[in-house]
Amino acid sequence: MKTAPNGAATSAPAPAASAAASTTPTNGATMRALVKPSSAPGLTLDAHRPVPTLGPRDVLIRVTHAGICGTDRHIYEWDAWAAGRVPPGIVIGHEFVGIIERVGSAVSRFGPTAGIGLRVSAEGHICSGRDYNARTGNAHIARDTQILGVDRDGVFADFVAVPEENVWPVHPSIPDHIAAILDPLGNAVHTVMAANVSAKTVLITGVGIIGLMAVTVAKCAGASRIFVTDLDERRLELARKLGAVRAWKANDPRWIDEVQDLTRGDGPDVLLEMSGHPGAIDDGFKALRMGGTAALLGIPSRPISFDLSSHVIFKGATVLGINGRRMFETWFQMEEMLLSGRLNLDPIVTHRIPLEDFATGFELMQTGEGIKVVMELTKP
Amino acid sequence: MKTAPNGAATSAPAPAASAAASTTPTNGATMRALVKPSSAPGLTLDAHRPVPTLGPRDVLIRVTHAGICGTDRHIYEWDAWAAGRVPPGIVIGHEFVGIIERVGSAVSRFGPTAGIGLRVSAEGHICSGRDYNARTGNAHIARDTQILGVDRDGVFADFVAVPEENVWPVHPSIPDHIAAILDPLGNAVHTVMAANVSAKTVLITGVGIIGLMAVTVAKCAGASRIFVTDLDERRLELARKLGAVRAWKANDPRWIDEVQDLTRGDGPDVLLEMSGHPGAIDDGFKALRMGGTAALLGIPSRPISFDLSSHVIFKGATVLGINGRRMFETWFQMEEMLLSGRLNLDPIVTHRIPLEDFATGFELMQTGEGIKVVMELTKP
Amino acid sequence: MKTAPNGAATSAPAPAASAAASTTPTNGATMRALVKPSSAPGLTLDAHRPVPTLGPRDVLIRVTHAGICGTDRHIYEWDAWAAGRVPPGIVIGHEFVGIIERVGSAVSRFGPTAGIGLRVSAEGHICSGRDYNARTGNAHIARDTQILGVDRDGVFADFVAVPEENVWPVHPSIPDHIAAILDPLGNAVHTVMAANVSAKTVLITGVGIIGLMAVTVAKCAGASRIFVTDLDERRLELARKLGAVRAWKANDPRWIDEVQDLTRGDGPDVLLEMSGHPGAIDDGFKALRMGGTAALLGIPSRPISFDLSSHVIFKGATVLGINGRRMFETWFQMEEMLLSGRLNLDPIVTHRIPLEDFATGFELMQTGEGIKVVMELTKP
Amino acid sequence: MKTAPNGAATSAPAPAASAAASTTPTNGATMRALVKPSSAPGLTLDAHRPVPTLGPRDVLIRVTHAGICGTDRHIYEWDAWAAGRVPPGIVIGHEFVGIIERVGSAVSRFGPTAGIGLRVSAEGHICSGRDYNARTGNAHIARDTQILGVDRDGVFADFVAVPEENVWPVHPSIPDHIAAILDPLGNAVHTVMAANVSAKTVLITGVGIIGLMAVTVAKCAGASRIFVTDLDERRLELARKLGAVRAWKANDPRWIDEVQDLTRGDGPDVLLEMSGHPGAIDDGFKALRMGGTAALLGIPSRPISFDLSSHVIFKGATVLGINGRRMFETWFQMEEMLLSGRLNLDPIVTHRIPLEDFATGFELMQTGEGIKVVMELTKP
Repeated sequence: MKTAPNGAATSAPAPAASAAASTTPTNGATMRALVKPSSAPGLTLDAHRPVPTLGPRDVLIRVTHAGICGTDRHIYEWDAWAAGRVPPGIVIGHEFVGIIERVGSAVSRFGPTAGIGLRVSAEGHICSGRDYNARTGNAHIARDTQILGVDRDGVFADFVAVPEENVWPVHPSIPDHIAAILDPLGNAVHTVMAANVSAKTVLITGVGIIGLMAVTVAKCAGASRIFVTDLDERRLELARKLGAVRAWKANDPRWIDEVQDLTRGDGPDVLLEMSGHPGAIDDGFKALRMGGTAALLGIPSRPISFDLSSHVIFKGATVLGINGRRMFETWFQMEEMLLSGRLNLDPIVTHRIPLEDFATGFELMQTGEGIKVVMELTKP
Repeated sequence: MKTAPNGAATSAPAPAASAAASTTPTNGATMRALVKPSSAPGLTLDAHRPVPTLGPRDVLIRVTHAGICGTDRHIYEWDAWAAGRVPPGIVIGHEFVGIIERVGSAVSRFGPTAGIGLRVSAEGHICSGRDYNARTGNAHIARDTQILGVDRDGVFADFVAVPEENVWPVHPSIPDHIAAILDPLGNAVHTVMAANVSAKTVLITGVGIIGLMAVTVAKCAGASRIFVTDLDERRLELARKLGAVRAWKANDPRWIDEVQDLTRGDGPDVLLEMSGHPGAIDDGFKALRMGGTAALLGIPSRPISFDLSSHVIFKGATVLGINGRRMFETWFQMEEMLLSGRLNLDPIVTHRIPLEDFATGFELMQTGEGIKVVMELTKP
Repeated sequence: MKTAPNGAATSAPAPAASAAASTTPTNGATMRALVKPSSAPGLTLDAHRPVPTLGPRDVLIRVTHAGICGTDRHIYEWDAWAAGRVPPGIVIGHEFVGIIERVGSAVSRFGPTAGIGLRVSAEGHICSGRDYNARTGNAHIARDTQILGVDRDGVFADFVAVPEENVWPVHPSIPDHIAAILDPLGNAVHTVMAANVSAKTVLITGVGIIGLMAVTVAKCAGASRIFVTDLDERRLELARKLGAVRAWKANDPRWIDEVQDLTRGDGPDVLLEMSGHPGAIDDGFKALRMGGTAALLGIPSRPISFDLSSHVIFKGATVLGINGRRMFETWFQMEEMLLSGRLNLDPIVTHRIPLEDFATGFELMQTGEGIKVVMELTKP
Repeated sequence: MKTAPNGAATSAPAPAASAAASTTPTNGATMRALVKPSSAPGLTLDAHRPVPTLGPRDVLIRVTHAGICGTDRHIYEWDAWAAGRVPPGIVIGHEFVGIIERVGSAVSRFGPTAGIGLRVSAEGHICSGRDYNARTGNAHIARDTQILGVDRDGVFADFVAVPEENVWPVHPSIPDHIAAILDPLGNAVHTVMAANVSAKTVLITGVGIIGLMAVTVAKCAGASRIFVTDLDERRLELARKLGAVRAWKANDPRWIDEVQDLTRGDGPDVLLEMSGHPGAIDDGFKALRMGGTAALLGIPSRPISFDLSSHVIFKGATVLGINGRRMFETWFQMEEMLLSGRLNLDPIVTHRIPLEDFATGFELMQTGEGIKVVMELTKP
């Protein structure tokens, strides 16, 4: 049973014909939302944010669960990247699952009757659909892309509006706390699938949240043996639990020799770079076998000193830049992996908290105690 | 300590410097060999077959274990294909593992000291290396290929000679009864890897020996969900044990609808055709989703009625003809899969018998009681 | 304010070249249209067909030039395929170029000011965008696709309405008579690009209109040498002019030997099958080299006898079923080819006639005198 | 008629049965050879270098034409790379064509009768054939590769010995001065084919000798439009002649905007980096479109500052490290391109000189007056 956010139910008349029920938010309705109030660290929980207005091709989704991403933490802490990109006043957040509440007048895929109540997530890269990449299956790198919760209002709120093209119906067998993190899981799946790991040895440098997901994803995708490096012993241990056959401290000077000994002296077939750290990138390429493939997801914060000759040219390497998720090939692959029962994500979702405790969530991530924190937007 | 076959050790002097020890076979030495004596059903165990002569680039391998293949059964039963292809007098057999006994004078990869005693198998497709495919990584479809045990003397014997390019050192962790069947396992791996099953749904039509191997191989290679069809209930049951989530009788009229229901109404992403049966081929293509990939290994015995328009053209399908194994990409993939510990082949190797009981081996295959029978060539 | 043509034609001046002006159709307006009136051969020119109504996401295009396709001829002649597929009463035609006249209320890519007057064509495969293929860059094989002029009203009319996602802005450097045939050119480009002909030898079996286009397209795409077969000497001669280095009568018993002699004895790397004729398909696969690629566009009218074992499995061939055009990768490739100045299409567009002479157009195609006939829809 | 090098013919007896004729060089015979005599700049023409001894699997080739490569110039000038890699005393040179003079006793592809006198070139990357890359069609990046004229005696001599696997029979239609430079042409072909340029826009940064070859190769391979940058106006002009539609001075600040204007605002689809210059690399990646492919052949002499985040990760780029030539896929592609008649190499081979004038050849390259200089080894 769908009900409206607080205030809306009692004070507003029923919406027009395109809406589902008398309790959906009306034009003047408000909602809870986590907002970046000004150009400074911190976030504010606004209890009376207006519910987003709905364009004719948009879908209004009632958010039920939302994951906190490293990107959100950058905005929370207001680092240089955030200060240069994010407009104050925005609702942040982009990982979520929810329920379709209302659809715009020209929505064609989710009818006013068939679509309302459907459990969905959404791809957070929104573009006009006009350019080369948008029209050839690579909308994730379209030139005019806006990102939910970064460039426009996001999902840490009771409601979010997204174009219907971006909506992804969630398979009934996927539980809410997993459905809430399809966005970062999609980053891991995109990276792993781009690198084509089937029957190959895989080295993952950096097992933060996406790196850890990549361990279980690579195993599910058919990697033969997975090796990881990181500086954090707890994460190395978790990587072992998720299927890494060897996990080294990144500053152990022997690991490159050891990984090559384990792989005919060649080095691993595939490098998944998930740290963004210049030293890890350098070591990863050193370890990679001649003719190997490196998929890069970790983002160095500035230009680095890079040995293109040894690492790429003489090595005959293939290097793939990865961001976002393919729309929607990655999402289908992710669904298949989840249906296969072979992904193990439960050790990764370490905490589930109410929206109101958002500050605790960010602290758990800052201390490293939390890996993935999911906020539950139960009705207040 | 390596010793020579009976007779050789006592009657012949030690070979020249390129050989390992005084007990290796000399030019006049003989050995046991399973021979097709004439153009008729049956095989003869010849106890005094001359040991193969060794060209300057050949390696002489003492066979320790050899698998019986469906091809061997065709030759044993002397069907139309065998009668048209196989020269009587030949030693048959092509699946095996053994020990390097001696190397030719111009062999460069396996030195007289370093190579002797090495446990090896060999790729049974032997070609001159001259043509386009041989020179571009596709020697398995070179035009002048000869097949071991079909076109030239094979491995059901104490010794076999093969060019050094064809020799494959077997990883120490792989047990002999598995090392003996790398050839057919390679067929399954070649088919699965060509079809690129990672994170995809896979339908296997026909679970004979290669089809059963393909179930565990596809799972290891990252297939999300595997479906199979066959007429033999015992094999369907074994397929389920190896990881198929559904296994239907091929004549069950409902299975195409069911497999499509399980796959968003689309049908499976990949078809691995392993039966060679016209009806199964037709049904497999009907089930395949639009834009799917079909890898064909099963060989129809004659031209079939085929709906190219519906099955391939309108479907936008990709169809891959598969035979042999890629030299040596498939072998490396196979090794990696075996090292990963994720292949389950033990239920497939149902019987291990001495060479002398070869007739029993063929009977086990004919009755369907045996799936893969491995012969052990203990010294007589 | 946009107003209507009919009646307008007599009372109002023609609008400016690019523009919207006072003559656009109103809701009750009518137009000329070529209609299939009943389940029988023939077409009728209806001078008072209502202008299509426009959904909120549709674009109304004033057609200026339209090509006659083999499919249109099937409908004109009312063969078994047409009788089984096409609903009488429909406006036919799907190859065209025109000018945007009006846009629906929720159209987002072509604004009421920026888009009106734009010269455009459109992809004729229209789907809901919901299924796997539609969401992964393969909308041309989506399950619920409707084809313009086959399943819904087409372009042999003064106006046609299509969803904005299907609209393709035409580059200013492309002349109208070429812009009118991007649809069939796209079939040729799709086939050639799928087969990856760069630096390869290419055999084209069947040089009807798409096969002839494929000659110049394959040359432009980097095919090293192009060979063709057909039964029609005039078309063989035209193929030679377009760049085929050899063109054989398909019933010449020596051509397979000759094409293999010209290609190291191997046979051509790529087969583009454009005839749909069982004998040509059989010969094409015989000629293809081991490990070659066959892209099939020609549609056999029924299941054929096909030697899967020799032609695909033992040959290690890759077979690609091709239909439609990739949306919109093929369209971008086509634009690039046209911009390169290396396509030679002028010998292929043999006739340009007014809409009123449509019967002559179909006759030209039936006699074989016309290859591609383009109708010009000057204002009546 | 084949005759022996001077000295040999008069002083030595005929070789053994594996050789062709009484005039071939015998064990004690000598020949002319360009030798690096010591760790210092310069080369010496040794008139009495012993003819190479022939292993059982080697082929002895009488060199008739040889190209001077930039690598040879590095050795001639004895720069830091050369001093660190090349052993003094070596015969240098690796680009050549010649005639098979004699074959080793275990050579199987070029018989003593069939092979002698054949016109051949050879792949200069020589490896043992043991490792992963060597066994999977990527011998050009095998770990134990030795390069002719760099790590072992090369081709600036009357005779060179190479393993038969490396020998490439040259098609009769290819003239000697082109056959002599298949090695560098192969670099260009390898780069272009790896990047898959068919129907794509291509930017080449740096049009030295390989970059110029890449212009005509990319056009032949189906690139739609080719853009180049360089600092040398003469080379830019030559690039225009070879087919570049635009050629900019690399220090022109407007070129990136211009190339993007010419490509829908996106930038070129493909970057072929042939300069090795950090600034050119940076600019090339800036220009490349989102999701584009960069193939890197130019070798920076040290690690560079590189913006992995903008250039690769956010861009979703594919970066390919290229060296050598694929063995022998690149060679077949090159032959096909030459047979197509669409390569224009004559403007690139600017000078042909006798071996004795080698110093002139190096000077022509140093001044930039010569692009490719071919030495002719006429009998003295």
